Amino acid sequence: MHGAEFIQDLAVIMLIAGFVTVAFNYFKQPVVLGYILAGVIIGPHTPPFELIQDDRTIKIVSELGVVFLMFSLGLEFNLKKLSSVGVTAFIAATAEIVLMTWIGYRIGLYFEWNTMDSLFLGAMLAISSTTIIVKALDELGLKNERFAHLIFGILIVEDIMAIGMIALLSGIAMNGSVDAGDVFVTVGKLSLFMIVALILGLLMVPRILAFVAKFKNTEVFLITVLGLCFGFCLLVLQLEYSIALGAFMIGAIMAEARQLHLIERLIAPIRDMFSAMFFVGVGLLFNPDVLVTYALPIAVITAAVVLGKIFACGVGTFVAGNNGKTSLRVGMGLSQIGEFSFIIASLGLTLQVTSEFLYPIVVAVSAVTTLLTPYLIKLADPLSQQAATVMPPFISRAGNRYIVWLQSAQLQGDRALLAKIIMKIVIQVIANCALTAAVFVAAIYLLGIVEQLIGTSFEDEKIHKTVVWGGALACSLPFLIATYRKLKALSLLLAEIITGETSHLPHGWRRVIAETIPLVSIAVILLLIGILSRSILPPFEMLALLLAAAAVLTAALWRPLVRFHTRLQIALFETLDEKAEDETK
Amino acid sequence: MHGAEFIQDLAVIMLIAGFVTVAFNYFKQPVVLGYILAGVIIGPHTPPFELIQDDRTIKIVSELGVVFLMFSLGLEFNLKKLSSVGVTAFIAATAEIVLMTWIGYRIGLYFEWNTMDSLFLGAMLAISSTTIIVKALDELGLKNERFAHLIFGILIVEDIMAIGMIALLSGIAMNGSVDAGDVFVTVGKLSLFMIVALILGLLMVPRILAFVAKFKNTEVFLITVLGLCFGFCLLVLQLEYSIALGAFMIGAIMAEARQLHLIERLIAPIRDMFSAMFFVGVGLLFNPDVLVTYALPIAVITAAVVLGKIFACGVGTFVAGNNGKTSLRVGMGLSQIGEFSFIIASLGLTLQVTSEFLYPIVVAVSAVTTLLTPYLIKLADPLSQQAATVMPPFISRAGNRYIVWLQSAQLQGDRALLAKIIMKIVIQVIANCALTAAVFVAAIYLLGIVEQLIGTSFEDEKIHKTVVWGGALACSLPFLIATYRKLKALSLLLAEIITGETSHLPHGWRRVIAETIPLVSIAVILLLIGILSRSILPPFEMLALLLAAAAVLTAALWRPLVRFHTRLQIALFETLDEKAEDETK
Repeated sequence: MHGAEFIQDLAVIMLIAGFVTVAFNYFKQPVVLGYILAGVIIGPHTPPFELIQDDRTIKIVSELGVVFLMFSLGLEFNLKKLSSVGVTAFIAATAEIVLMTWIGYRIGLYFEWNTMDSLFLGAMLAISSTTIIVKALDELGLKNERFAHLIFGILIVEDIMAIGMIALLSGIAMNGSVDAGDVFVTVGKLSLFMIVALILGLLMVPRILAFVAKFKNTEVFLITVLGLCFGFCLLVLQLEYSIALGAFMIGAIMAEARQLHLIERLIAPIRDMFSAMFFVGVGLLFNPDVLVTYALPIAVITAAVVLGKIFACGVGTFVAGNNGKTSLRVGMGLSQIGEFSFIIASLGLTLQVTSEFLYPIVVAVSAVTTLLTPYLIKLADPLSQQAATVMPPFISRAGNRYIVWLQSAQLQGDRALLAKIIMKIVIQVIANCALTAAVFVAAIYLLGIVEQLIGTSFEDEKIHKTVVWGGALACSLPFLIATYRKLKALSLLLAEIITGETSHLPHGWRRVIAETIPLVSIAVILLLIGILSRSILPPFEMLALLLAAAAVLTAALWRPLVRFHTRLQIALFETLDEKAEDETK
Repeated sequence: MHGAEFIQDLAVIMLIAGFVTVAFNYFKQPVVLGYILAGVIIGPHTPPFELIQDDRTIKIVSELGVVFLMFSLGLEFNLKKLSSVGVTAFIAATAEIVLMTWIGYRIGLYFEWNTMDSLFLGAMLAISSTTIIVKALDELGLKNERFAHLIFGILIVEDIMAIGMIALLSGIAMNGSVDAGDVFVTVGKLSLFMIVALILGLLMVPRILAFVAKFKNTEVFLITVLGLCFGFCLLVLQLEYSIALGAFMIGAIMAEARQLHLIERLIAPIRDMFSAMFFVGVGLLFNPDVLVTYALPIAVITAAVVLGKIFACGVGTFVAGNNGKTSLRVGMGLSQIGEFSFIIASLGLTLQVTSEFLYPIVVAVSAVTTLLTPYLIKLADPLSQQAATVMPPFISRAGNRYIVWLQSAQLQGDRALLAKIIMKIVIQVIANCALTAAVFVAAIYLLGIVEQLIGTSFEDEKIHKTVVWGGALACSLPFLIATYRKLKALSLLLAEIITGETSHLPHGWRRVIAETIPLVSIAVILLLIGILSRSILPPFEMLALLLAAAAVLTAALWRPLVRFHTRLQIALFETLDEKAEDETK
């Protein structure tokens, strides 16, 4: 590939993208469709001539488009925002993803496509398009309505689940089959990685950015942001996760930095440039012949996307306790597919597990559903009024009764507070366990490198293992102690509840419960660590020695270790509580 | 080249660039040097390992860096700014470029390098670095001093001359030799292209941007800007000029748009990203071994750059009428080389006319001179005071007398006004002639396409030529008429001056001069057109017929044609007079 050719291809893309975009904006149609059409025009499937000399150019640039799209989505993601929309978003998103994946899979099988094609089709239909929805709501002036906030919440949850789905699909594609055990291991590994990366990232990245921001040099700041973004993507690629996951996560981490608004302002033009190329790239892969050959599947899938999503999201929103009108509006707003479907379709092609025809079908479905989105949103209001008059009275009465029941069933007062406290402790225990596990995984990795570098005899190996495993145990002591303390607090709380409710139990039980649970849990955790780190476990006598040393160390350094952990925890919460500053410059 | 590899290479570059940049900024060293060092670190010439899998990646991305660097330089370029710094900038820049090219060429020959290497070395030493100087002056807080404004003016003139130089070097490199005729033809063609592109660009581009800006959609606006930028680069590449020329020119055209500030804000992050990669790419090509092997040439060239530029720019500034202190400050500010030298060095490598060792030498010289720049600027003040005390009195007296003489020699009052008017008319005549020539060049090009598409017999050819040539003549009538009218105004003015000064001439002469000059000029212009368009000239009888028809048309449509041209001219001046608006959004 020659440099000049690359520039020429890029120039053709940008020129036509610019032209089509202006035309689409003039006629008030979604710009994204303009890009895709531009791609179809210059693509290899449409006469009169092929304007792109090297398809690979576009694929490479598309990849950058994914990075910046996902990074921007991550920047808009926000842990606090997520917790505020909470239950509704989670229920609706789960309902949508499960139902749509199943529908997509069934449709694929119905048309006698192979299992992998059907599975990928299901995944492609699962996630709605943030890009399209945000633009449509913006243009209709509905961005601040309650249903819009619910939609954004659902999109955020979907984004996270999509990330998990991409990781799962990669795993399944490589193993060639769906195995419950594999799924469990994949999800477990992914969760471990995400928790640890989030904690370490939140501790480090905002501090690095605050340090660099002090130079008051926008260029240096931008290059730092890009360096951190790509550096993290590199790490994620090394761990064989997708680059989309990496870009999204580092975006979500940077969303907690004080300089969020500056980052968004600097990244926006770069994202717009590369996402334009990404969507043009989508158009390039589109073969219009498919429209004719696969007319029936396209029609079926389009109908399934619109109706399935209205149903799944609408019912999910209603079940979570919203009224019928809001639920319908949410469902109709989410009834399209977009960028994530393209990313998943590309993934299938890259891993060479899906057929060529799937991509253009998804592009066609996305184009139709995107065009429908603004009309569906506008249609939601009259339709819900219509539905209210047509619906048999017993249904609406049942609905109202459900909502009343739901409100009465919710925990209130002291109990709600208690549930919240228990939730918080459980999250902290999980986080500390994840960090402990991460220390040992890192130790395994480290020992691998050491042995590769200096070679090893049998005797050496024993010493190495003892040193490395012992070191890992020492490093994870603060997290183990924190886990123990949190578990103890939790046990006391539980003992209080149990002994309070069932007063016929002897008072001594309370003590027993409060002491036993944490000790048993720690023993289980240590056992799990042993299984996890079995490849670097030192011989038995060494192990016993190490554990004894650790016990002595724990007793001797209890206070400093607790203090160290508390300091880390405070730093993390500070980062999460900090608000992004307005740009004063 | 695989997509993932590309992303990995890019990630490594961004990660290391980010790290080194922060370090350089922390220690208050130029960021550009940081990028270059990052490139050297990850480059193939430095152990322990090669971090980049595919050198071509970087070359491609570097190319994009050149586009955005030159586009940004163009945005900062401003026709009005140029005319305000005027004479000083022109004299100093010319002195610097001529002297430095000659010095570089002589140094090359002295070290027994071949002619092409020596010539490119000269070109590389000719242009100072806008990037480095602007940053250095900014950091020293001297940006608003008078000498800083002179420096900026000189840099602007240098940029234009550099553009010409790049075109010339490409021509010379392809022909393999330096021929006065070739130079003349190359410069002529280039001037024609630049004038026509500027006029058409200024008429069209700001209007397109104003239209798109009405959508109030930043993404669409950015994509339009990029589309226009790359589209123009594509055109320039088709005409076999360098992409640097295209990016600079379209930038200069957009600098006249009302939305200039928005464009600058949107392009800045993209430029920063790609220019970082450009400078990292420069570092990649740097082989540290060269530092040892070519220690002597590097030392000699560094000394030549510093001393030669201080001398050339200082004397040039002084000759243009500035005092000794200002001249020394200007000279010392400009004494380094930078991005243009790298672009020219790349050009030589791409055209395969220069030796490999030239690139690292230039990088080394640039690094040293860049590091010296802030110290030299700080040194200028004490040095000029020192010089004033040490200098023999007759020299400073001669200097003062020169400045007094210069001020007395300048045109003042009516004469200055007259000179200005004449200058303006001459520029307008040149612009109209250029447009006329462009119409015929386009006609030649058009006929070529027509004949390629539909084939041609001998008889057909005559008809085609007649139609196309006649069409071209018709299209150029407004410009020819405008030329005639401007020339007539000029002749009247000249006749006034001549008859006013030499009263012994009979009064009739005035009439004769005023009538003859424009007619003769138009005849000469028509003759030149004939020569220019000789390949599409119709047979004689047809030609006579066409000319007669044109004469009739001119007589009949004189007023509408004049009105049409006036409207174009007003539109152009409106664009040039318009100020960039503040960003209200």
